[in-house]
Amino acid sequence: EIMAKEQIDLVSRYAAVLQVGARTMQTYPLLEAVGESTLPVLLKRGPSATMDEFLLAAEYILKTGNNRVMLCERGIRTFEDHTRFTLPLASVPYLHQHTHLPVVVDPSHGTGKASLVATMARAAVAAGADGLLVEMHPNPDKALSDGYQSLTPAGFRQMMAECRKIARVLGMHM
Amino acid sequence: EIMAKEQIDLVSRYAAVLQVGARTMQTYPLLEAVGESTLPVLLKRGPSATMDEFLLAAEYILKTGNNRVMLCERGIRTFEDHTRFTLPLASVPYLHQHTHLPVVVDPSHGTGKASLVATMARAAVAAGADGLLVEMHPNPDKALSDGYQSLTPAGFRQMMAECRKIARVLGMHM
Amino acid sequence: EIMAKEQIDLVSRYAAVLQVGARTMQTYPLLEAVGESTLPVLLKRGPSATMDEFLLAAEYILKTGNNRVMLCERGIRTFEDHTRFTLPLASVPYLHQHTHLPVVVDPSHGTGKASLVATMARAAVAAGADGLLVEMHPNPDKALSDGYQSLTPAGFRQMMAECRKIARVLGMHM
Amino acid sequence: EIMAKEQIDLVSRYAAVLQVGARTMQTYPLLEAVGESTLPVLLKRGPSATMDEFLLAAEYILKTGNNRVMLCERGIRTFEDHTRFTLPLASVPYLHQHTHLPVVVDPSHGTGKASLVATMARAAVAAGADGLLVEMHPNPDKALSDGYQSLTPAGFRQMMAECRKIARVLGMHM
Repeated sequence: EIMAKEQIDLVSRYAAVLQVGARTMQTYPLLEAVGESTLPVLLKRGPSATMDEFLLAAEYILKTGNNRVMLCERGIRTFEDHTRFTLPLASVPYLHQHTHLPVVVDPSHGTGKASLVATMARAAVAAGADGLLVEMHPNPDKALSDGYQSLTPAGFRQMMAECRKIARVLGMHM
Repeated sequence: EIMAKEQIDLVSRYAAVLQVGARTMQTYPLLEAVGESTLPVLLKRGPSATMDEFLLAAEYILKTGNNRVMLCERGIRTFEDHTRFTLPLASVPYLHQHTHLPVVVDPSHGTGKASLVATMARAAVAAGADGLLVEMHPNPDKALSDGYQSLTPAGFRQMMAECRKIARVLGMHM
Repeated sequence: EIMAKEQIDLVSRYAAVLQVGARTMQTYPLLEAVGESTLPVLLKRGPSATMDEFLLAAEYILKTGNNRVMLCERGIRTFEDHTRFTLPLASVPYLHQHTHLPVVVDPSHGTGKASLVATMARAAVAAGADGLLVEMHPNPDKALSDGYQSLTPAGFRQMMAECRKIARVLGMHM
Repeated sequence: EIMAKEQIDLVSRYAAVLQVGARTMQTYPLLEAVGESTLPVLLKRGPSATMDEFLLAAEYILKTGNNRVMLCERGIRTFEDHTRFTLPLASVPYLHQHTHLPVVVDPSHGTGKASLVATMARAAVAAGADGLLVEMHPNPDKALSDGYQSLTPAGFRQMMAECRKIARVLGMHM
């Protein structure tokens, strides 16, 4: 995750994708800076960003010259308290109707609960998501961060098997 | 939709299910009144009800003696303005983990846009929904109410075909 | 607080005002029933009601023939978790611009914390509120309900003294 | 408003205060950069930031060595649509109870409507605000930005007169 211009060079040496996090989605100079990179950019939706604001933030990157932008829905802030964020999957078909950019869903941050991640990953695929961003840890209880929302490798494998079934039956590639 | 005790007798003569609408989900005397009916009850989640409040409202019906209660997620009120409500599908697995009652999803009210309904119906099935509540009209443009969120019969048929595929591949009955 | 038609006669024998609670603000048959009463009605805003929905609910009472309706802002449901609800005082001037009905503010439910009530009562008066609805208890720790948001008699007296000062300096009667 | 480290030097030559805007409240490298400045910093609350996140963002500036931080409540994102944002004045007493930093209120962004600004400024002072951030324009209809939420000089004068009356009667300096 990139939070400042100065980090781009260093991160680019090791990472295949630059991620702009939810909290910096509207830090415009940062968007322009990753727009000058040749790496693809994963842009996470801010927790209170409207679709218009999300698309406008992507536009900042695109207009600077980098057209490899992926949009990532990772949940919004609402009154709900049984999940960390509320994951509004209608974003997926809405974004597909309004842009040609690929849409990725993050059910780990979007729920904040390991027990809900696999089910929401399946739902995201059924909603047409082009990709998933899922946290996994060999031993979630010992994870340095976000263990409560991380799948085990076995859980991850099972999730992927179900997601592939849905993708196949809907004629999607995965 | 039942909004007052006095309507129950009349509606019961014609309807197979009593619906308690989102706006009356916490009108406790009404919940107790439908609890005395022998008909099944579809209880819609209030647009700002937490899961605890939703389950407590169901409890009012159950304790009065009617245990045929279906819980219906139909969207919550958030800052989002590209949809009528925000449809939080994580409710489906959450409710399945906390109750044995069937969970129905209403993607028509949950999105308020016909163009998003079929995709969200698919996602709801993938999330494990036990049923769908979908608005259809032979001629949505001429509908007396909610035409903008109604499917045509052809659109409905196509939606059902896709939902059945997902249900089958996940080993669910539909 | 009235939650069903049948309660109106009984309550009317003892109460000076009929209160329609936030959870039943959109139970239309109930609104029409209190509309037939000769007692004034305090209508509380639902926790996710827009201003349009709030005014429409008042309209149900008015059109049935009871024009003594008071509108009560008592807080809305948002992502904030340091207060029980979020108290949006801009409702007061907004409602004054759009209706001639008196506007009452409930800082007890609106904050859910005794330590914030007096300050928000002052702010409500400065925003032009025509009345306040405040919970007080001789011994809040022993209150059967809502003790955590109740003022002591001494706290209430001090709050009223400050509110009166503000009302006086703004040329309002209180 | 500072959106990138590189802007600090230039802005510092002309401005008396560095403003960190709502959209960059959680851009941590930026917070640390203004923390190294000798100018006071006005930190605006993000539209979906909790009080904990707001105070933590201030902490980033403080720990870097700049202890002249002002916290600015400028409204949060909720379902309300009659105002641009919802202005939750309970933040003022809450922040006063949890920190010694001064609390400023911005009723211009907090309402997004010129007709509500003066009333909410009064309410903010009554809630104990240490300062106000108010947009004014000699000719709001011709303003390049935010004209719809800008006061005229005459409106501003009248607002200040009323705010001063409230401050005086509550024993505050203004």
